[in-house]
Amino acid sequence: MTGRFITFEGGDGVGKTLQTRRLTETLTARGQRVLLTREPGGAPGAEDIRELIVTGDPGRWSPLAEAMLVFAARAEHVARTIRPALDAGTWVICDRFTDSSMAYQGYGRGLGEGPIHTLHGLLGIDPDLTLVLDIDEKTGLERASLRGGADRFERMGAEFHNRVRTAFHDIARANPDRCTLIDATGTPDDVHARILAALTERGLLA
Amino acid sequence: MTGRFITFEGGDGVGKTLQTRRLTETLTARGQRVLLTREPGGAPGAEDIRELIVTGDPGRWSPLAEAMLVFAARAEHVARTIRPALDAGTWVICDRFTDSSMAYQGYGRGLGEGPIHTLHGLLGIDPDLTLVLDIDEKTGLERASLRGGADRFERMGAEFHNRVRTAFHDIARANPDRCTLIDATGTPDDVHARILAALTERGLLA
Repeated sequence: MTGRFITFEGGDGVGKTLQTRRLTETLTARGQRVLLTREPGGAPGAEDIRELIVTGDPGRWSPLAEAMLVFAARAEHVARTIRPALDAGTWVICDRFTDSSMAYQGYGRGLGEGPIHTLHGLLGIDPDLTLVLDIDEKTGLERASLRGGADRFERMGAEFHNRVRTAFHDIARANPDRCTLIDATGTPDDVHARILAALTERGLLA
Repeated sequence: MTGRFITFEGGDGVGKTLQTRRLTETLTARGQRVLLTREPGGAPGAEDIRELIVTGDPGRWSPLAEAMLVFAARAEHVARTIRPALDAGTWVICDRFTDSSMAYQGYGRGLGEGPIHTLHGLLGIDPDLTLVLDIDEKTGLERASLRGGADRFERMGAEFHNRVRTAFHDIARANPDRCTLIDATGTPDDVHARILAALTERGLLA
């Protein structure tokens, strides 16, 4: 039986990395084979592309070129890492996927929704469940800056990050069959409990 | 008045680089402002992507990822180099464009025509004239190997290059309004004369 594909989405500093690890640990402890991966990156070639995307000047890439780079890395990630794992029955937990492209390139950079839908359609894969972690963007950016040096996206300014948060809300609302919006305030244990509740509600946990 | 956009296509070793230079010289001598550029590359970010595409193992990229990388570089090339020049009234002569993606990724790597058409549609630009230079692929690969170290595509084998040549014929046949097939045998002067005749026939030269 094919594995389940679960993606985590949300702005910077919302706690995705920690929560993907927590969920991986919990599922593994219950005997499920789980692969934890993240974007941009997650396969050797995709990591090389990631370097181009996250470094350099905020204006380094035109919006369409940036979106195509992100999807090139994603196509590699799907072909080399995600699809083989799912085919082997392993569950895949992925830190960011297409919804981040919609938020950062489609909304944030003003490319629009059309090109993102078009590029996503070429991949031929959709998550079984997307957990959209949500806090106000000011708290998120504070958490992200505590983590160390800001990357290219973190330096794009408050208005950009407002558009990104709006995007994630819109995406969750427009895709209720796939997405659950998770309140990411409180302690890591609080958030983890909300995530397990969402999986149970979706029939992914007994 | 906007400039004209002329692309050169054809397999490796067919003489594109030399003929793009010759045409640039001739048009410049006639008083036309001309920008000569090439793909993959042609803008700073696109050159960075080019490095990822032309180096490494033949199986380095999945076909879809490779096509998306090529189009990311192309989107950057269009946004930063080609479109600004055309808007300023400069003619642009470009060594390879979307037809090379159709030939190398669509036909050669077996990705199919659909994804290439989809990715090209996102660019929002088409050449005014495409000159498809044609010789048999054995002569082409011999010429290319005389030039020095073979790149990743030149190492892909005879069957691959057969598919590429078929692709360029199909493209020229399917797009007669845009494409002219040029016999690239004989001396550089012979081929240059055929190219000038094609431009004259299309109303691009008096």
